[in-house]
Amino acid sequence: MKAFMDKDFLLSSETARHLYHDYAAGLPIIDYHCHLSPKEIYEDRKFENITQVWLGGDHYKWRLMRSAGVEERYVTGDASDREKFQKWAETIGLAIGNPLYHWSHLELRNYFGYQGVLNGDTAEEVWQLCNAKLAQPDMSARKLITGSNVKALCTTDDPADSLEWHKKLKEEGFEVQVLPTFRPDQALSIEKPGYLDYLKTLAEAAGEEIHCFNCLKKVLKKRLDAFGDLGCRLSDHGMEAVRYVPAGKDEIFGIFKRRLEGQLPTAEEAGKFRSALLLFLGREYAQRGWAMQLHFGVIRNNSQRVFQALGPDAGVDSIGDAASVKELAAFLNALDETGELPKTILYSLNPNDNAAIETVMGCFQTGEAVSKLQHGSGWWFNDHKQGMIEQMTSLANEGYLAGFVGMLTDSRSFLSYARHEYFRRILCDLVGSWVENGEYPNDEKALKQIVEGICVKNAERYFGL
Amino acid sequence: MKAFMDKDFLLSSETARHLYHDYAAGLPIIDYHCHLSPKEIYEDRKFENITQVWLGGDHYKWRLMRSAGVEERYVTGDASDREKFQKWAETIGLAIGNPLYHWSHLELRNYFGYQGVLNGDTAEEVWQLCNAKLAQPDMSARKLITGSNVKALCTTDDPADSLEWHKKLKEEGFEVQVLPTFRPDQALSIEKPGYLDYLKTLAEAAGEEIHCFNCLKKVLKKRLDAFGDLGCRLSDHGMEAVRYVPAGKDEIFGIFKRRLEGQLPTAEEAGKFRSALLLFLGREYAQRGWAMQLHFGVIRNNSQRVFQALGPDAGVDSIGDAASVKELAAFLNALDETGELPKTILYSLNPNDNAAIETVMGCFQTGEAVSKLQHGSGWWFNDHKQGMIEQMTSLANEGYLAGFVGMLTDSRSFLSYARHEYFRRILCDLVGSWVENGEYPNDEKALKQIVEGICVKNAERYFGL
Amino acid sequence: MKAFMDKDFLLSSETARHLYHDYAAGLPIIDYHCHLSPKEIYEDRKFENITQVWLGGDHYKWRLMRSAGVEERYVTGDASDREKFQKWAETIGLAIGNPLYHWSHLELRNYFGYQGVLNGDTAEEVWQLCNAKLAQPDMSARKLITGSNVKALCTTDDPADSLEWHKKLKEEGFEVQVLPTFRPDQALSIEKPGYLDYLKTLAEAAGEEIHCFNCLKKVLKKRLDAFGDLGCRLSDHGMEAVRYVPAGKDEIFGIFKRRLEGQLPTAEEAGKFRSALLLFLGREYAQRGWAMQLHFGVIRNNSQRVFQALGPDAGVDSIGDAASVKELAAFLNALDETGELPKTILYSLNPNDNAAIETVMGCFQTGEAVSKLQHGSGWWFNDHKQGMIEQMTSLANEGYLAGFVGMLTDSRSFLSYARHEYFRRILCDLVGSWVENGEYPNDEKALKQIVEGICVKNAERYFGL
Repeated sequence: MKAFMDKDFLLSSETARHLYHDYAAGLPIIDYHCHLSPKEIYEDRKFENITQVWLGGDHYKWRLMRSAGVEERYVTGDASDREKFQKWAETIGLAIGNPLYHWSHLELRNYFGYQGVLNGDTAEEVWQLCNAKLAQPDMSARKLITGSNVKALCTTDDPADSLEWHKKLKEEGFEVQVLPTFRPDQALSIEKPGYLDYLKTLAEAAGEEIHCFNCLKKVLKKRLDAFGDLGCRLSDHGMEAVRYVPAGKDEIFGIFKRRLEGQLPTAEEAGKFRSALLLFLGREYAQRGWAMQLHFGVIRNNSQRVFQALGPDAGVDSIGDAASVKELAAFLNALDETGELPKTILYSLNPNDNAAIETVMGCFQTGEAVSKLQHGSGWWFNDHKQGMIEQMTSLANEGYLAGFVGMLTDSRSFLSYARHEYFRRILCDLVGSWVENGEYPNDEKALKQIVEGICVKNAERYFGL
Repeated sequence: MKAFMDKDFLLSSETARHLYHDYAAGLPIIDYHCHLSPKEIYEDRKFENITQVWLGGDHYKWRLMRSAGVEERYVTGDASDREKFQKWAETIGLAIGNPLYHWSHLELRNYFGYQGVLNGDTAEEVWQLCNAKLAQPDMSARKLITGSNVKALCTTDDPADSLEWHKKLKEEGFEVQVLPTFRPDQALSIEKPGYLDYLKTLAEAAGEEIHCFNCLKKVLKKRLDAFGDLGCRLSDHGMEAVRYVPAGKDEIFGIFKRRLEGQLPTAEEAGKFRSALLLFLGREYAQRGWAMQLHFGVIRNNSQRVFQALGPDAGVDSIGDAASVKELAAFLNALDETGELPKTILYSLNPNDNAAIETVMGCFQTGEAVSKLQHGSGWWFNDHKQGMIEQMTSLANEGYLAGFVGMLTDSRSFLSYARHEYFRRILCDLVGSWVENGEYPNDEKALKQIVEGICVKNAERYFGL
Repeated sequence: MKAFMDKDFLLSSETARHLYHDYAAGLPIIDYHCHLSPKEIYEDRKFENITQVWLGGDHYKWRLMRSAGVEERYVTGDASDREKFQKWAETIGLAIGNPLYHWSHLELRNYFGYQGVLNGDTAEEVWQLCNAKLAQPDMSARKLITGSNVKALCTTDDPADSLEWHKKLKEEGFEVQVLPTFRPDQALSIEKPGYLDYLKTLAEAAGEEIHCFNCLKKVLKKRLDAFGDLGCRLSDHGMEAVRYVPAGKDEIFGIFKRRLEGQLPTAEEAGKFRSALLLFLGREYAQRGWAMQLHFGVIRNNSQRVFQALGPDAGVDSIGDAASVKELAAFLNALDETGELPKTILYSLNPNDNAAIETVMGCFQTGEAVSKLQHGSGWWFNDHKQGMIEQMTSLANEGYLAGFVGMLTDSRSFLSYARHEYFRRILCDLVGSWVENGEYPNDEKALKQIVEGICVKNAERYFGL
């Protein structure tokens, strides 16, 4: 029996241990997609207790507690932080097989030096230890980032965002690159009731006014430039599904004009508008050499009861229906046909899309970059051992695993760099298993190149960081 | 090499063997969903020969024989029971990797004391042995149930059923609880030609008449009460897909009224009617504290040739298209929004639905119960080693495996309790593999709680048995 | 650590090694579906260098090179053969986990006697060695076939094909059966612009004229007979999806008549026409005892840019959306209902279809043949270790693996028989793992029958070769 989560956690062969300890473990982290607050980084936020860090906004944990039958009062309600921590400890203590079990224990080991097991019985001990540690100066936002060997991180920002905290960090010269990512979901949400208000905010951020579709494009270009000035290398789009509904220029102008006049579009019109605007943006990204991230296959706010009570990101989202492979391919083709397809990273929340996504990607690869189209690492509900193994095995089967840009945290937490360790262990174990099984030669030079590439060097080159 | 199906069958580690032999093996069975005949239990049915037991109505075995090229005469036709058994033995003898191979040999070991291998060569020996054993008094329906350590079982019954056999069993005080399950598929099938005849039967069972949608609801309530009086704890619904088509009260009244007048509904009207009636029933289940089972993702009677010849349940059903995650979520939300979502168990026959189902479930979990929403154990075409491992791994990844209500037979056979053993071995092997691999601590107390919970205690608590 | 790709490659247990070396390895090959050119076989084609053999038309390799960031000039462009080989060697050298890695090295070992590893550093050595070997007389098309122990192979041919090379091979008495396969995709493509031109070619091949739907059927019958005269045992259909849109006879006549007059059908009309013609053909296959292959779940020519530049089969195809299980079942039922369903092999490019396909198949199995309906071996993007294991495990779970007709190359290359070896190793490892794990008895007779059946004997019997 292997010891529980010791230094060889998840490393089941000699080769795996060698690859992890001698190559992967010491490499810096490029966290090219996260949801950290640049303000909290700039202000170097500190935390009062472990409940604030772990349960303050982590809907993954909220869901698990509810699934274990914990009352809402102890999840997001008015119970004390100590009470909430007790319920969390009891929940995680029995959460065998859940990635939160591993993430939490990796965080306890890496950031708090706790080598034990968290459950209802040990909750008090862990509470004391963590809170004492959090009171120390090396547990601030910035110290957690630098202490985790992070070289660069990309936050997720609305085009209307002033980026003031990114600017301040840059001016101040924080040793870690903190770069904005352009996420214009609101600019595309023409069917939403608050769209016109949003347009106003967006226009103000650009110092312009929006009277027509051309104005919108002009405003977005100015914001793209502003993001670019602060080192932006990626955009990001969240959507239920990648749809592609072609339409003529005049039609798009008309739809947008009527929206400015207060008239809501039909579902078909909204689809046409989004397709047109996304094509425009894709071309802009291509010109700038940015990567475009598409996150799809998700249904948000399934429980209206919880959404009304707690707002978005409250743990009531789910995997959505499988992607329309045809529309995804048609959308990429529309950009590719004119040579304007940017580097693109596809993430679907529905794991059934894996193989289809990878074979669609394969149709648009060119000599412009190593793996110009990428299949993003197991995302959200797939961000676990099995999900990662499936994504990487499938990518290896259908494409070129050695060109993969690897892991990202997608997280709001300063402790979540442990997920890069989790990923690297799983990567080294997978690669090691192929070598040990005689499926790939024990070629030190090639293995080093593959592992270092996927851990950090591919991302460095791909994003131009 | 491990010995073929010995006492450590499927238990590949020390921890797995410990968990199975020291905890799981001896626990009683709660078979909360099966298709046993309460009449046969009451009358304590006996069987003439092993062909009657095994091939009398088991469409799983019929399909396998047809796939092996056996002529229909030996499957459901007029060949002698001995001839049929020979063909079955030849078929199963080469059916490597099929769950029937394991189920059959577990049954041979557990109920007939046969430690050998069944194939064409041993058919005669097994035929003699089984038939001699079946002639003995301990091989009656009731003895098979009690001998299998069954504590409670829930049959599947139409609301129009008089439940006379359940009553008799209760009055007589049979030591095993034999409870009815409310399965109103026929009441929902407004588009079927025989619907009005069914309504008459249903109305008679309630001692009422049905003149309007309100009458239907009243009748169903009376039958719900009658089921409740006999200890019913669950309902069950079988459907091609979970659809949700909202409609106003008046519209539903009109659709039903026209149906009473002989006018068939359109497909859309039928969908609206079913949605409305299912919501009504869901609320009733919630009030009664019952669990609602939804079985979907199945297409029935694909071969019209066989259906015409043999009727339903003849082995010509298949997995259906993947679920509409959006409609499933919308249906659950419609009940959840008003706090009227009952405990719910979701079963899809399409294994691609696993992760989506679990993430939808996660949106509606509350403190009302440990894992109020459940993902049912690998069902029908997924009721095999791989299907169980996938369902449990996926549940562990996306939710709270420790709260799982575990196995059910879904069977018409008194020998099928062997499937609980099969499940428990697979469960212990899976849990054991995590512990042996250092992914969960070797914590005796926690492991005992998890294994005992999934084997029987969670079901006891969840269903209130 | 196992040695890299030695004689026990992929054979991880004693039983696996025994089954492979003592049974599987020495069996002849029936390659019942490939895309070899009968002309090249007849003319006994030779090759100048390894780039011609490997990169001349292999879009699998082209995709991998593009995914590795290789410029098109080195893929399909005007770079020299030596330069292209260098880029290929560099690409494959890091393609860990990709089936091309294994196929290429198996080919190097089996046909060129190279035991080393191909990568950028060894490219020159391999280039020299392969080219020297290709210059020798035993490296011609026919010698490669006979040297690979091929007993029969079935090419893929349009009904309009004169089959002259098949005739010549037959007349000459080439020791290996080279049989045509009837693939009438063009005859079904009523919506294509060049359809009328195609009909002319087809009519000429039959020495007839086509004035109506009946004429088309008459012409196709004549071509079916011509194919039959040369030993044809299979048909093949490639389609985005299996659709079934029933229509009356008159409607079909009208649609076809209007097409002859130059009027393109609507999408719905095209679907009806294809359904009707496919039913007609299915019945013809049934009468002749041929097997019908259906290949679906594919989207072709996703990148219009590459398609314009290089034509079809240029590496820009992908997996398509999941099958409509309902329509697939309805189509099979339409033939089955009148007892006219031929032996049928279903291949979906979308791996999510596996279990659904197998359960649909199970509905139509009869005593006419062992596994009359077959699930084709992992196809194209699923033709790798994981894809094969999933297809065979799923087939074993849902059906009768022992009746499986096994592997085919689906290839344009004379070296691709290595894929049969790859398949057989994986098969023996899978079967061996079940035996070693106590899930199937170590019964020499049964194991021999299962392995020999799947390797070659089932195909022999199923296709009547």
